[in-house]
Amino acid sequence: MGDFAADPSHPRYQSLLLRHRLEQAEKEGLLAGSAMIAHGRGEAYDYLLGECTIPSAEKATVQALGSLKKAQRPVISLNGNAVALAGESLLMLAERLSCPVEINIFYRTPERMAALIGRLEAIKEEHQLEVQILGAEPNARIPGLKGPRANCTKEGIIDSDVIMVPLEDGDRCEALVAMGKTVIVIDLNPLSRSAKMGSITIVDELTRVVNNMLAGIENCVIDEAFNNDEVLADALQHIATKFTSP
Amino acid sequence: MGDFAADPSHPRYQSLLLRHRLEQAEKEGLLAGSAMIAHGRGEAYDYLLGECTIPSAEKATVQALGSLKKAQRPVISLNGNAVALAGESLLMLAERLSCPVEINIFYRTPERMAALIGRLEAIKEEHQLEVQILGAEPNARIPGLKGPRANCTKEGIIDSDVIMVPLEDGDRCEALVAMGKTVIVIDLNPLSRSAKMGSITIVDELTRVVNNMLAGIENCVIDEAFNNDEVLADALQHIATKFTSP
Repeated sequence: MGDFAADPSHPRYQSLLLRHRLEQAEKEGLLAGSAMIAHGRGEAYDYLLGECTIPSAEKATVQALGSLKKAQRPVISLNGNAVALAGESLLMLAERLSCPVEINIFYRTPERMAALIGRLEAIKEEHQLEVQILGAEPNARIPGLKGPRANCTKEGIIDSDVIMVPLEDGDRCEALVAMGKTVIVIDLNPLSRSAKMGSITIVDELTRVVNNMLAGIENCVIDEAFNNDEVLADALQHIATKFTSP
Repeated sequence: MGDFAADPSHPRYQSLLLRHRLEQAEKEGLLAGSAMIAHGRGEAYDYLLGECTIPSAEKATVQALGSLKKAQRPVISLNGNAVALAGESLLMLAERLSCPVEINIFYRTPERMAALIGRLEAIKEEHQLEVQILGAEPNARIPGLKGPRANCTKEGIIDSDVIMVPLEDGDRCEALVAMGKTVIVIDLNPLSRSAKMGSITIVDELTRVVNNMLAGIENCVIDEAFNNDEVLADALQHIATKFTSP
């Protein structure tokens, strides 16, 4: 993963660490050309959230975790930024959930796929994890999407009932919802199309979300009255106060 | 500048064009490592503004232009992202104002300085512009700053009375204000330290600002009652409505 020398007491340590992970991933060929810009947009929204897990995001995280545990065929979809930022903890979560992960990237090239699989296999090896990694050999397509971005696997995404999509593009999120799946979106921008489309939307930073899931995995309870519109409204309200009482 | 093939009628044309300019600039070595992430943060705030020049930003732009025209020793400070995104129009503006530009970068290396000067000289040549380009041989320091980021020229930044700093870092902005200068800040984030520190803060996207200045240069009038706090409050209010009535 390369050296990262910043002092953990530095007020921007976490932010610098995430940047470092992206820079490493870029060198390894894991990322799309727009990955850094996308991360910058995320940084802006995280700043507006206060760089913390707000209570409504915690509620959505618990609900998401409960849905994944209760699912018949859960799957975690991974793209380049997700692997770069939280590959290790996402694979640990997948193992705890006995759930496969599927590499599912918007800008698909054989080189990027190979680099991503290589990284995930290295993590599995290092931490001795038992996780099925899907996506290398797509054998199905997500209905309603054009081009290589529709490619996926039948045994993973197509047959899943609950799918978690960190940092997902709006079109793909919409297509998955249209398939009738429970779609768990992790997105820092509560105004994004993905955030609005999701069945359960976690407006929080990915590494915090996965750490919260790992910490709460034994004790999560599904709330039958969970309302995703309320979660989104709360996140919007939280950010609005940054601008109305700066 | 490399080929850029997108269709101007594409709804994201302007955004794609700016990304393309940054990608080109990165290849030429003009940018700092954090440039793409910084641009992504800007994209997020521009989205919140509605990707347009809001009325209070127009007011601040007119005021800034009037101040530059009235100044005894105006100067435009340029960093890597500013040159990449709006180098041509900034040099055209400098010529119209008979004002030097000074390259003033946070992460200063001889290679980046040479690349930036090379790019600006090429623009001057192509458009036959008469503009003094300062910064290659710093002979002074901005008081209150440490390290290479304090380096500047006496005839440019130090002796200026009005300085325009597009996309400037907060520390440097503060140090310039402390020198008693009129500091014109161009920043998409109205909550940033630069935005708050500026004498005149234009909360708008750089290429739009410079185009607006070029279009209005003959007819701008200074408003003696101009209040920068009102400009900032209006920008905050404008963004807040995105979250309160999404």
